[in-house]
Amino acid sequence: MSGVNVAIAGATGAVGEEFLRLLALRNYPIKSLRLLASARSAGKKLKYKGEDVVVEELKADSFKGIDHAFFSAGGGISKEFAPHAAQAGAIIIDNTSAFRYDAEVPLVIPEINPQDAFKYGERRIIANPNCTTIVSLLPTFPLHKQFGLKRAIMSSYQAISGAGAQAMEELQQQMRDWAAGKELTVKHQPKQIAFNVIPRIDAVQDNGYTKEEMKFLWEGRKIMHHDALRATATCVRVPVLRSHAVSLTLEFEKPCTPEQAREILAKAPGVIVQDDPKSELYPIPLERAMKDDIAVGRIRQDISVDDNRGLCLWAVGDQIMKGAALNAIQIGELLLKK
Amino acid sequence: MSGVNVAIAGATGAVGEEFLRLLALRNYPIKSLRLLASARSAGKKLKYKGEDVVVEELKADSFKGIDHAFFSAGGGISKEFAPHAAQAGAIIIDNTSAFRYDAEVPLVIPEINPQDAFKYGERRIIANPNCTTIVSLLPTFPLHKQFGLKRAIMSSYQAISGAGAQAMEELQQQMRDWAAGKELTVKHQPKQIAFNVIPRIDAVQDNGYTKEEMKFLWEGRKIMHHDALRATATCVRVPVLRSHAVSLTLEFEKPCTPEQAREILAKAPGVIVQDDPKSELYPIPLERAMKDDIAVGRIRQDISVDDNRGLCLWAVGDQIMKGAALNAIQIGELLLKK
Repeated sequence: MSGVNVAIAGATGAVGEEFLRLLALRNYPIKSLRLLASARSAGKKLKYKGEDVVVEELKADSFKGIDHAFFSAGGGISKEFAPHAAQAGAIIIDNTSAFRYDAEVPLVIPEINPQDAFKYGERRIIANPNCTTIVSLLPTFPLHKQFGLKRAIMSSYQAISGAGAQAMEELQQQMRDWAAGKELTVKHQPKQIAFNVIPRIDAVQDNGYTKEEMKFLWEGRKIMHHDALRATATCVRVPVLRSHAVSLTLEFEKPCTPEQAREILAKAPGVIVQDDPKSELYPIPLERAMKDDIAVGRIRQDISVDDNRGLCLWAVGDQIMKGAALNAIQIGELLLKK
Repeated sequence: MSGVNVAIAGATGAVGEEFLRLLALRNYPIKSLRLLASARSAGKKLKYKGEDVVVEELKADSFKGIDHAFFSAGGGISKEFAPHAAQAGAIIIDNTSAFRYDAEVPLVIPEINPQDAFKYGERRIIANPNCTTIVSLLPTFPLHKQFGLKRAIMSSYQAISGAGAQAMEELQQQMRDWAAGKELTVKHQPKQIAFNVIPRIDAVQDNGYTKEEMKFLWEGRKIMHHDALRATATCVRVPVLRSHAVSLTLEFEKPCTPEQAREILAKAPGVIVQDDPKSELYPIPLERAMKDDIAVGRIRQDISVDDNRGLCLWAVGDQIMKGAALNAIQIGELLLKK
């Protein structure tokens, strides 16, 4: 294929911006680029490889001639416009949760289940997983392949940019107001996020878990093709601008040591090991922003399970990059390689 | 007893300040109050019930006539001066980790093991547990009593004030510098804490755990008299000024439901239940600062274990109050009641 016609639906958001930067950086073979957004943003100009591209209003007929359509404008938009894009012959790589749990729609992390990317079928949709799932599974899957994952317990430390550009600005405004001795304003988050943590992300389900927490289980099973997986999660927003962190406690069928885990993870695609806590080497959100790989450290034997069948680890990744735009682009690159 | 002679070793620190405030607030029956600190702080005046008390230099002979000596000036100071205080006839309530793992020294959370407070023996020392242990165990113990705790998995979100007054000021200075567009200075923490989280608290042990993480297991077993307890922890510093939060995943011998847990915890001393996440009711650090009780919420069935033998919960408490000064004072109050 000499090149593809690309559309980005939701081009003006934080993830859309990251799409433009990464498509250019990775030299995605773009023949033409169409930037789509709501009527409000139509006419706005965005830069791609130094040139202005005018944002068009997203409409049912926006996808004529498009090969790859990246959607990142909310679940409702995806549900409404993906069928039109498919009708026009595009393959949709959808960054929302609209289709993730649909049995006909593959859910893909290229380092884990690349083969699934080609199973988009007649609906022509491939779903991009949740950011926290991606950060968690990148280091978990290589260990699962080797030792057989039985159960995963995850607690997250999620950056405010995961809640959108307005929430990110809110944290910064709260910090500026605090420094100026002013009263703080809370609008885009349920509670003040400056100097606080909020243990509720996304809607609360009837079982008491939030949807964000359930995604870890639902998506983990689907991506790893591991229906027997047991998992629980607690998802928490922290006053960090960018990059999600997760504390993972993993139980395996087979015994495993931290040394083996480090060796396996050092070779794992999309993962880097930063694990020498005595020398202050461990992944932190500040240092992972704008980086491709998920960093993993604090790898140790879980002393609460017998026979060395457990590991604890700490992983951090830029949730806008590998957790969203980068993973979606890598799915597109998989399709191009075929 | 009509009153006691009280000494505070480490009176000028953050916990020392809290001691003074709480001793006054709770009308601790003080006959005389001696404030002790390093030579550097001697001569300084601190307020107790509106009156100035002059800080004296902590010396071997500082404890003559003292009944209750609260120590909060670091493990080295406790090791050096506790024997002198005991020699003088004082009972030492020690807020450091110096004696916590000593079989002869009781480790006490008054709501959990009050009977142990009287086993101070000839060394006359009672140890106050680690702040994160206290926040975690207050809601865990009543559930253990009912359902039999087998295994606990904890991930913490710890406030910077737990690292001392200088670290707390460092976070605030970093925030002021950030707001002013200046470069940030890192001195008292291993990494920048503003807009970051740091997954390393206290020294790293040979097993890869930090001492802070091991305390949860060591102290949990000792306080709950539960040597068979299995536990693992990941302790993380977050940019919060005050109050620690913990994500707890608990496995029990017997089946249990979130409804039962809520009922038990609603009656548990030192604990309040804040659990209606659909209405944004859950414990957060900002709202727990300066409060006595540990708040617990996000109570749900752990879907990763069979037969309802697991619960997930989220607890938050002011680590300077119940996590330190308040718990120590409550130990003193136990002794007074005898």
